[in-house]
Amino acid sequence: MSRVITLTTDFGTGDGYVASMKGVILGINPQATVVDISHSVEPQSIRQASFILHTSWRYFPEGSIHVVVVDPGVGSHRKAVILKTPSACFITPDNGALSYVLHEIAETQAQHSLVKINQTIIRTLPSECEAVSITRKEYWRHPVSTTFHGRDIFAPVAAHLSLDLPITEFGESINNLTVFPIPTPFQDATGQMVGHIIHIDRFGNLITNLRSSHIPRGGAAIEVRNQRIDNTSRYYSQGSGLIALIGGNDYLELSYRDGSAASILGAQVGDTIKLVNPSA
Amino acid sequence: MSRVITLTTDFGTGDGYVASMKGVILGINPQATVVDISHSVEPQSIRQASFILHTSWRYFPEGSIHVVVVDPGVGSHRKAVILKTPSACFITPDNGALSYVLHEIAETQAQHSLVKINQTIIRTLPSECEAVSITRKEYWRHPVSTTFHGRDIFAPVAAHLSLDLPITEFGESINNLTVFPIPTPFQDATGQMVGHIIHIDRFGNLITNLRSSHIPRGGAAIEVRNQRIDNTSRYYSQGSGLIALIGGNDYLELSYRDGSAASILGAQVGDTIKLVNPSA
Amino acid sequence: MSRVITLTTDFGTGDGYVASMKGVILGINPQATVVDISHSVEPQSIRQASFILHTSWRYFPEGSIHVVVVDPGVGSHRKAVILKTPSACFITPDNGALSYVLHEIAETQAQHSLVKINQTIIRTLPSECEAVSITRKEYWRHPVSTTFHGRDIFAPVAAHLSLDLPITEFGESINNLTVFPIPTPFQDATGQMVGHIIHIDRFGNLITNLRSSHIPRGGAAIEVRNQRIDNTSRYYSQGSGLIALIGGNDYLELSYRDGSAASILGAQVGDTIKLVNPSA
Repeated sequence: MSRVITLTTDFGTGDGYVASMKGVILGINPQATVVDISHSVEPQSIRQASFILHTSWRYFPEGSIHVVVVDPGVGSHRKAVILKTPSACFITPDNGALSYVLHEIAETQAQHSLVKINQTIIRTLPSECEAVSITRKEYWRHPVSTTFHGRDIFAPVAAHLSLDLPITEFGESINNLTVFPIPTPFQDATGQMVGHIIHIDRFGNLITNLRSSHIPRGGAAIEVRNQRIDNTSRYYSQGSGLIALIGGNDYLELSYRDGSAASILGAQVGDTIKLVNPSA
Repeated sequence: MSRVITLTTDFGTGDGYVASMKGVILGINPQATVVDISHSVEPQSIRQASFILHTSWRYFPEGSIHVVVVDPGVGSHRKAVILKTPSACFITPDNGALSYVLHEIAETQAQHSLVKINQTIIRTLPSECEAVSITRKEYWRHPVSTTFHGRDIFAPVAAHLSLDLPITEFGESINNLTVFPIPTPFQDATGQMVGHIIHIDRFGNLITNLRSSHIPRGGAAIEVRNQRIDNTSRYYSQGSGLIALIGGNDYLELSYRDGSAASILGAQVGDTIKLVNPSA
Repeated sequence: MSRVITLTTDFGTGDGYVASMKGVILGINPQATVVDISHSVEPQSIRQASFILHTSWRYFPEGSIHVVVVDPGVGSHRKAVILKTPSACFITPDNGALSYVLHEIAETQAQHSLVKINQTIIRTLPSECEAVSITRKEYWRHPVSTTFHGRDIFAPVAAHLSLDLPITEFGESINNLTVFPIPTPFQDATGQMVGHIIHIDRFGNLITNLRSSHIPRGGAAIEVRNQRIDNTSRYYSQGSGLIALIGGNDYLELSYRDGSAASILGAQVGDTIKLVNPSA
């Protein structure tokens, strides 16, 4: 079976950890096409892995299998899960790595059932999705280490799944998954939309959670860290200095012509950004 | 069709941008073999991308498709182009990324027709080469973002091209491409060859634009940043300290045994280097 | 032939050196699956490359071909070799890059015949292994540069080997290979096991040469750089602060919860670590 398996981890590419996963996959399914999404996720940043996955997975062929391993709880009692949506499968520790993907699917379906249980947030599955807890050890690599489930559980399960086994072959069905709260834009007391910086990319572009739909027809000025941008641009080379534009995943982003907006503004993930009346 | 598609970008590998391109390619041609040339081109350095491509592309199988996306002008009026040479295809914004490749082909053909139009330099195509301006939108991914043509135009065009469509299927023929001036070595008033550092590699080796053909039969001493190297070595471990030798792409390079020549000399791309009489 | 070829180098991924090797391989065997083990080996650190290869190679399918090019002596008189073991082939300059792999195989076989010849250590091959010196130039890429044998010798030899030629096709048989001494744990005067840090990974985890078999049944406390760890943990999220646990390749490693043990301890490869009586 020629199937695409993607990998998103915080392992880096220097130590041979990712290579070990690929070796295990190719030993089980020599026809699999393994593609790296990112291995430079900040160590243990489930949030960052979740966002990067969210901006990439839908560009892969239908039926692709996306493995995400940012796993500070490896070896402890956290579950390992498979999520199957109509267009893809996801394999990951049940630690929130699928938060953005689930948010994205639920948004489409206008479902927002979140339940908070002792600090952990659980989301019931959107309809048309299935999930299992990975418990059938016959599909794992043995001996299973307590520190490297990427190689011993997630890689072999992905490879076996790519051979077209049903997900129920890997463990019992479950109805909910762990997610973290996704920050959503809100209107402040004066009616202005407030969003947040949710990612900073290689160029120092500041990606926010504001979408094109948040920008009024008449346009908007943007306030961020005491700077004001008078209007949105259509592309990077339009205007100069600090600009705002809608990026390739429909998020409003701030960019600095020939420089890094992140460095120049000293901005960080979590900082607020405000849409204000352009004529104010 | 099993065809090689290479990717050269300034996207880094952390954000999922490159992965999105690969996903799009594999969705159109699941048999394509996608190979990374480099994704750590300095942001927006078309010159660096052009040089790295030039030192790599000819080692790939005939018919390979090389995609280069260093694209500060994305979304503006810069053209997107395909260049077809007898042995490979290149897909890129028309911004100079093919300068070294065209220089290399034209050198072989002893053609040097450059025309300067308002600061931009245009090169008429070497014979046996064809080019098109990419305009046929049916081969693009829709909706096309204004900020990520790598994913929405260059990747799908490369994938369709790898299915063996003629390049004229993608747009109308053009006769010239944008290039930047390639610095060429020259003789100074005293008859000594003067070259430039054109690239610094991971080891801190300083790659210059002097070729083996520039070195006189009797050998040459080399002067760089007030240092003198008495003769060229054949390989890195010959001699000690600062050495000069002909590298794997026939460029004279300066290397420091067990260290970085770039750091030790404080050298930068653009610095001059001089070949002098070894007995002087 | 669909065969896996892995690459381990100190070339980085920015310059197109690794891409050139992949291009050469795919030109000879378009069906080869090329997998990166690591390209960020510290420049010229044969020791680090050897360790990373050792922790990865056995997870690849039987018959995989592992190319290691950390080659400060490129172009000089060092040999180029192929080692064939019952489960894999290795292609590399004969400079010690296979030290850990040979140690691992010899350990299983309880063979330890090392001969020291003028500072260089030579190991006779474990039984069931064969090796050749790569001398048959018809399998090389020509012209052969004196500075880039990765592209001109190791890549084409790996690709031809992946087409199922016998290793004796590439040169004459040899009986020994160059290795460096692998530091082994020892008992000090008071009977306590002393080991060394042999690798530091992306997370700042300190991997030592102590194995699970070195830890007494009653457990052990660990002393490192004036810190004491009272017992070993089973997984990373057990306990807090500095912990010790058996990692995914059966090496004792030291890890810092939510931080880098290497930075916090100021530890380096070569530092000693001691197993002491837990009740002392």
